[in-house]
Amino acid sequence: MIIEGKNAVLEALKNNVTINKLSVQNNLSDNMSNQIIKMAKDKGIRIDFVAKSVLDKKTKNKHQGFVCDTTDYSYCEVEDILALASSKGEDAFIVILDGIEDPHNFGAIIRTCECAGVHGIIIPEHRACAVNDTVVKTSAGATANMLIARVGNINSTIEILKKQGVWVYCLETGGKEMTSANLKGSIAVVVGSEGKGVSRLTKELCDDTVTIKLKGKVNSLNASVATAVVVYEIVRQRG
Amino acid sequence: MIIEGKNAVLEALKNNVTINKLSVQNNLSDNMSNQIIKMAKDKGIRIDFVAKSVLDKKTKNKHQGFVCDTTDYSYCEVEDILALASSKGEDAFIVILDGIEDPHNFGAIIRTCECAGVHGIIIPEHRACAVNDTVVKTSAGATANMLIARVGNINSTIEILKKQGVWVYCLETGGKEMTSANLKGSIAVVVGSEGKGVSRLTKELCDDTVTIKLKGKVNSLNASVATAVVVYEIVRQRG
Repeated sequence: MIIEGKNAVLEALKNNVTINKLSVQNNLSDNMSNQIIKMAKDKGIRIDFVAKSVLDKKTKNKHQGFVCDTTDYSYCEVEDILALASSKGEDAFIVILDGIEDPHNFGAIIRTCECAGVHGIIIPEHRACAVNDTVVKTSAGATANMLIARVGNINSTIEILKKQGVWVYCLETGGKEMTSANLKGSIAVVVGSEGKGVSRLTKELCDDTVTIKLKGKVNSLNASVATAVVVYEIVRQRG
Repeated sequence: MIIEGKNAVLEALKNNVTINKLSVQNNLSDNMSNQIIKMAKDKGIRIDFVAKSVLDKKTKNKHQGFVCDTTDYSYCEVEDILALASSKGEDAFIVILDGIEDPHNFGAIIRTCECAGVHGIIIPEHRACAVNDTVVKTSAGATANMLIARVGNINSTIEILKKQGVWVYCLETGGKEMTSANLKGSIAVVVGSEGKGVSRLTKELCDDTVTIKLKGKVNSLNASVATAVVVYEIVRQRG
């Protein structure tokens, strides 16, 4: 997998992601560039200094002078997420994405979840965006600090979480206004796909539905924005 | 200006944006497409049915079969925003963008603000993204329902707002945690640019600084996500 951009490469280095090679644009001398180069050198990572045009060819995103080749993203198990919460002595805080397809949305959600202290994200194996180069870049490197489990069946996973005492909320219209719902305790919130929302069967499996108040004429928020708003309401209630 | 995509075109029609011509891809027959075509016909707008390839050439974004040519986006004055709040009998709720440069962020912010009941957005004339085709598309058409003022000098505008009794908060690190700040009453929140945050002088002019709690290793949220989180905290406090 390719990781590119200063923030993403720096986070990969800090989190000991296995980097096979780092390509750096010639003649960068700002503080952050120097920090990245020093850290890569200290770790004994191979660094190739190349012309900007070489990096431009490697990637279609904005590389900001830094592109590295890493081993593929390593997904975790759902149990790892619960174990992380438990090891921190915290109630579980999980985000389940029911079919997010846009890598920019997925990356933005990972970045938000990392900032908000979410323990892990669960995505389905099929009909959903996996962790790819664009996701890593959009997440500003947060993929390196975030547990992400990829499961065959979201509904079975919800059943398992419920048995473990996790309260599963669905984020959809027509539910309880989120600020008046009780979002404390071990919680997972299911966010639907960009076009279709949460699938009917999954919604039925959830313990309850929460809703973000909408006042305008445009009747929906972007998926990554909606996730951020509910995640930070959970952060507020957990105190 | 070009407006494209089903949601954006539908919102433009609903909001009586002046449409010079609507180009529609041949043989679309889903409900939403039929609704758009009927509404355009009812309004006497010229409709050209064309091959998908014609639309592909008109735009670099996803047009979903609908592209219309409109007159340029019409900015409002700061006074119009205050007048809107006043006419609704509500405390003013304003978002000031101090140099957002990415049209996707700007569009996402407009969409969020429209959903949250923000009365208007203020942007600077220079060194910032203006309302363009990509912004309209990303906003899902929310530009048609949102007052946006473009001002020569953000700092003078803040002075004027303060004189009108609007409390101006800066969204930055190192301030009051937002959930414990008092965000009721007439309020404007200043959001900084993607790279540099709020400029020093602007920050000094603000009445106070609010901060979103960050728990992870990645030390910042995406600008549109941060705006959404603080905007919805204001919505919560206003009740």
